[in-house]
Amino acid sequence: MNVTVGNRARHYRTVDFDVRHNTVRLIEQRLLPHRFKVVATPDYRATAAAIRDMVVRGAGAIGATAAFGLAQGVRAFRGANLDRFEVRVATVYATLKAARPTAVDPVNAMDQVRRRMTQGGTVAEQQDLALAAAQAFADTNVQECEAIGRHGLDLIPEGARVLTHCNAGWLAFVDVGSATAPLYAAQAAGRTFHVYCDETRPRCQGASLTAWELAQQGISHQVIADNAAGHLMQRGEIDLVIVGSDRILARTGEVANKIGTYTKAVLARRHRLPFYVAIPLSTIDWEMGSGRAIPIEERAEEEVLGAWGLAAGNKRTWVRVANPTSGARNPAFDVTPPELITGIITPLGVFRPRQLGRLRRRLEGSEIR
Amino acid sequence: MNVTVGNRARHYRTVDFDVRHNTVRLIEQRLLPHRFKVVATPDYRATAAAIRDMVVRGAGAIGATAAFGLAQGVRAFRGANLDRFEVRVATVYATLKAARPTAVDPVNAMDQVRRRMTQGGTVAEQQDLALAAAQAFADTNVQECEAIGRHGLDLIPEGARVLTHCNAGWLAFVDVGSATAPLYAAQAAGRTFHVYCDETRPRCQGASLTAWELAQQGISHQVIADNAAGHLMQRGEIDLVIVGSDRILARTGEVANKIGTYTKAVLARRHRLPFYVAIPLSTIDWEMGSGRAIPIEERAEEEVLGAWGLAAGNKRTWVRVANPTSGARNPAFDVTPPELITGIITPLGVFRPRQLGRLRRRLEGSEIR
Repeated sequence: MNVTVGNRARHYRTVDFDVRHNTVRLIEQRLLPHRFKVVATPDYRATAAAIRDMVVRGAGAIGATAAFGLAQGVRAFRGANLDRFEVRVATVYATLKAARPTAVDPVNAMDQVRRRMTQGGTVAEQQDLALAAAQAFADTNVQECEAIGRHGLDLIPEGARVLTHCNAGWLAFVDVGSATAPLYAAQAAGRTFHVYCDETRPRCQGASLTAWELAQQGISHQVIADNAAGHLMQRGEIDLVIVGSDRILARTGEVANKIGTYTKAVLARRHRLPFYVAIPLSTIDWEMGSGRAIPIEERAEEEVLGAWGLAAGNKRTWVRVANPTSGARNPAFDVTPPELITGIITPLGVFRPRQLGRLRRRLEGSEIR
Repeated sequence: MNVTVGNRARHYRTVDFDVRHNTVRLIEQRLLPHRFKVVATPDYRATAAAIRDMVVRGAGAIGATAAFGLAQGVRAFRGANLDRFEVRVATVYATLKAARPTAVDPVNAMDQVRRRMTQGGTVAEQQDLALAAAQAFADTNVQECEAIGRHGLDLIPEGARVLTHCNAGWLAFVDVGSATAPLYAAQAAGRTFHVYCDETRPRCQGASLTAWELAQQGISHQVIADNAAGHLMQRGEIDLVIVGSDRILARTGEVANKIGTYTKAVLARRHRLPFYVAIPLSTIDWEMGSGRAIPIEERAEEEVLGAWGLAAGNKRTWVRVANPTSGARNPAFDVTPPELITGIITPLGVFRPRQLGRLRRRLEGSEIR
């Protein structure tokens, strides 16, 4: 999407590749929303470190980063010996995989690159194929998000007041985003609407990242405390909810997403408001049979006991908000059952959550994938 | 309640009066949870300033502070001229009333003091009666909270996991608190239980004040993000909810309280969990006919866009969390309808929200009042 730095608007992807310098270019997300900076990782080890250290986050974004990191690592190989080249490929793959061990997107992305590489007979051919495959993965990610936008466009009527939770925007993908795609499509279609961004405690990705994205695109929005959405729905000030997802179970229609998503779905149901989940196809889990099997990560207590922000003097600072002798529980995700979800917005159309399982063959064999 | 400073536990009330020095003694709540300090206001103007500047907050606590401030102001009068004394009384009353113009508790408390003063024939007698009436107001506040504890005790079974929201603890009253009273009673009865404190963004009174209170009393508790309660209910880890209230409408059974209360009530209903509201009788509004008539204060955007806490070096600091070019909506209260409320815990017993109106005569004529 376009980012305005100073007076200049320029198009950026969250993740990109510099072919001439063989570097991966990443938006340094840990500095947002206070500073916009693009960093270039000089080798695959630095690319792995960028994933591990949260320079880049979000399923689609780290998938593309790993794909580019693999291409970067194999392109740096000098020589024509295929056996030695194979060792290098395995080393790079393992290093990138270990950078975020619980995520499935980097593995899927790198497996696509490796499959494509097998079509080459020489080291040089395989190096070129690796780059082409990584680029194709990133481009497909963008196309999927654009397709989500087309299919979600008509869910955002003129004047709509939309609630979002966390960040499933372009920063979490290569571009466009999932939950934000229908918003950007509606804006492109000339519609006016307003977005309420849940701040999304404890890490506040809504207040920091989603609000930054919408401000950059000039979309009318306000940040609200996670506590406020129920009240706004009660007063008739919200028309629909769109969120992203970390994993959707095709067999049950359950949606795992950032903590607090379930609460918003319960509120939406009480107020008979549509609740949509926007995802690329890679977010669908075809195998898992129950949402209760999804491990819910419990993160560090400090996230709940305080907050990161910018203090006077523009210094990034953590402040302790809670009583210093108290502890915290910090479940990072929750699971929303299908009966609370109006529709899943995918690159192939909008489906009921329980329809996904029956659509497996169609979805997996689709052109967009 | 007892507060441990260093190794010494000592009993404190939130608001107290020093007869010898004619000062009002207040816990400096703006320093909590990071520092415990009692301040003494030397004259009624300083007492009014303490209310205005949030040294003391919470309906019962500011009511008692205003009552003591009125006694303090009239006791400082020198002479026996009743006409001049009346002028002083009116000045003190008006000064204290203006300190928190939207609150009703200071006015009710001071009216009680003035009525009692009319029984005195001389300035000296009226001065003594003012002090006695203020003391009686504070003592009644404590007795009401203790009675809430007795009536709420059996709602906290052994092993219960209780969710609270915001702070309706002893810091918001003279002692004991409303929502916390059943917890302290259950602890005194030897029961073990666990409390989840909603952090209660944006001002985080749950993370700071309620967590501090429970830590001081040695009650097992953890702070959670406001987003987490739904997930914990879904996993069967919460048994009941108790909150306080800023205003309950006797005619409709609607409950106004801190933003986010309504959301917790909706979640509790979905999970068939009891949802209780604990209040002294002064919180009942006998006249208002609809919750939609309750003005919902919209507070400063900065509360949502950042957080106050303690930075390194123990320096109280505000950090900006949100994107700096984004604004916020900040409704401070919401209204929960009676059908979501299991019971109102009052000093006279536990009632259904819609019963309050019919109980007016009994409640207003009660001994505890």
